Amino acid sequence: MLNFDFYNPTHIIFGKDRLQSIDMHVPADATVLITYGGGSAKKSGLIDKVKTALGNRKVYEFGGIEPNPRYETLVKAVEIVRSENIDFLLAVGGGSVIDGTKFISLAFCYEGDSRDLLKYGLAPIPFEVAGKTVPFGTVLTLPATGSEMNNGASISYKQGKYPVMSMLNYPKFSILDPTLTFTLPKIQVANGVVDAFVHTTEQYLTFPVNGMVQDRMAEGILQTLIEIGETTVAEPENYDVRANHVWSATLALNGLIGAGVPQDWATHMIGNELTVLFGIDHAQTVAIVLPSLLEVRREQKRTKLLQYAERVWHIESGSEEEKIDLAIQKTREFFESLGIKTHLSQYGVEADKIPVVIEQLKAHGITALSETGDITLDISQKILENAM
Amino acid sequence: MLNFDFYNPTHIIFGKDRLQSIDMHVPADATVLITYGGGSAKKSGLIDKVKTALGNRKVYEFGGIEPNPRYETLVKAVEIVRSENIDFLLAVGGGSVIDGTKFISLAFCYEGDSRDLLKYGLAPIPFEVAGKTVPFGTVLTLPATGSEMNNGASISYKQGKYPVMSMLNYPKFSILDPTLTFTLPKIQVANGVVDAFVHTTEQYLTFPVNGMVQDRMAEGILQTLIEIGETTVAEPENYDVRANHVWSATLALNGLIGAGVPQDWATHMIGNELTVLFGIDHAQTVAIVLPSLLEVRREQKRTKLLQYAERVWHIESGSEEEKIDLAIQKTREFFESLGIKTHLSQYGVEADKIPVVIEQLKAHGITALSETGDITLDISQKILENAM
Repeated sequence: MLNFDFYNPTHIIFGKDRLQSIDMHVPADATVLITYGGGSAKKSGLIDKVKTALGNRKVYEFGGIEPNPRYETLVKAVEIVRSENIDFLLAVGGGSVIDGTKFISLAFCYEGDSRDLLKYGLAPIPFEVAGKTVPFGTVLTLPATGSEMNNGASISYKQGKYPVMSMLNYPKFSILDPTLTFTLPKIQVANGVVDAFVHTTEQYLTFPVNGMVQDRMAEGILQTLIEIGETTVAEPENYDVRANHVWSATLALNGLIGAGVPQDWATHMIGNELTVLFGIDHAQTVAIVLPSLLEVRREQKRTKLLQYAERVWHIESGSEEEKIDLAIQKTREFFESLGIKTHLSQYGVEADKIPVVIEQLKAHGITALSETGDITLDISQKILENAM
Repeated sequence: MLNFDFYNPTHIIFGKDRLQSIDMHVPADATVLITYGGGSAKKSGLIDKVKTALGNRKVYEFGGIEPNPRYETLVKAVEIVRSENIDFLLAVGGGSVIDGTKFISLAFCYEGDSRDLLKYGLAPIPFEVAGKTVPFGTVLTLPATGSEMNNGASISYKQGKYPVMSMLNYPKFSILDPTLTFTLPKIQVANGVVDAFVHTTEQYLTFPVNGMVQDRMAEGILQTLIEIGETTVAEPENYDVRANHVWSATLALNGLIGAGVPQDWATHMIGNELTVLFGIDHAQTVAIVLPSLLEVRREQKRTKLLQYAERVWHIESGSEEEKIDLAIQKTREFFESLGIKTHLSQYGVEADKIPVVIEQLKAHGITALSETGDITLDISQKILENAM
């Protein structure tokens, strides 16, 4: 097992009818900016309910944070935080709204050009660069990214999608009421399952370091997602199934299963370029890349792929190669059973576009990916060709 | 799934050679009281290493916190905290030292008679009763109780052992260096495995509420403990095995697997009386009570016992009764494989002492135990008779 630090101070408030907890967790004298996305939280009446829970606090609103939230949008919210003396942010939405709110929180306190904050990649921004944030909470409406219980964000700017990590960026609290997710479009529910699944595999399908309990927990999340996947899409109001979807998605990326083990993230980094270039949903991009990457990287990941085959998919017979093939096939079929296509060509992207993706990775300085840093641009190209 | 709150702000610092992190996590101007137990931490040189890590801070020491830490001992430490203006406590030891330090932290700030703090049972002490504590960190030397990452303590006073819970009582940080546990006596290592195992079953072997991901995580911890149990006892310096022991024991009682599911704790409450009356080690008491309790409560726990048989022990054939019998038998054999006896008579306690235990439970007001509150004193008696 590798040495690790694990720290996660987010207070999770989980279950039915928990909005009234907002009153206990937001300072009584706070001036609050509610942030949200395209308007469904507004139309559904959720924003009004949140305002009711905030009681007499002074409240402002900032809507319109888009999927893959854009720097250009978020700086407008920073202006409101400045002009209205906001001292608490409340994100109502999914991962994009929460990620965007994390950036607003950091950028408000940063004295220079806040585009600087996009330069740190997967390393936490040092305290001496950004040592202060506006505190924030979240009301989650989409189970997928885990942003509600971690310190990371992904911010889009021009032709790039940039990770922004800060130890200060944990939500003070997150309200996870599965019933608030009942009205989501099916595609977003399916995306959420795939997103959580691939967050888990990025921290599990690497090389073995005897993180036995971490492996078991990762396998537990994967098995749960497989168990609930089709039902959470088909039966949106099945509370227990959706509750397990929500909590699994949070646990998949709250730092726990990745503590003490290697992490890959190549699937995400390659996938991000597909989102930026072709507008493919984030979860769809990782559904395209993961099965192909596992095929290309079967030697490097052999031990864990066999463990995955046996423990997650209960494949007990066959040669090693057959077990690995079947596990990858079952992964692909699982995504497809949720209505998520797994081939790049199915999204209208032809093979002649692959060099453009590679150029884009190169332009973003992403030339050595994976848990061992040995996915070169040539291997990324092979993964994409294999994903056609 | 049940509604839940999950909050755990302890910063875990895990791995080899992490003592130097103390310097980053204890305020530079703190006056520190190091608390420890019977002296092995002193003799081994660990206390000196901790003092070195504390650098120029003013440091006091308080040793002699006993297993099942006693109120009478801890109030002496409270006096030192008062007289020397201590503002940070650093527990170096196992669960007893950490539990004792939690009590010192609470009692120092309590204005009345600190025995009042023993009256709240498993309910958190309200903030209006105890709204302030002295911050503390821990250096763990014994993987067992999980106290290093939770807000609970168990304090002995006269003829009783009392839970003391407070939302303020999370360690600020805990250093979990598996190498610091290499020199433990084998019996304490074995006790630690059993303690963590039974912490997990108390939160898992209840009635089903569709906490699917919680169940999978609990099963993951149980499977890991089964996998590492004999080796962590037999090969004390096997780092990876001990690391998985340490991290599993922490995860078994940090609130995560119990969030959103029913919890039992009858085994612990009955076991505590065996410790108080007969001086049997805590882990041994739960090794005595658990298999017997599962036999007596097989109807109430049927669904989860079958799940336990299938998923944890991989028992796939036989009737339901046979599966349950075999799962309980394997649990008993597992404890015994570690050198922990599972029958009360093996500890020199004869059947004529059972009424004394029942009287003691009654005297402590413990008349209705379990996840459904239906273990009456008569049923507790039956569990003990069956445990002979």
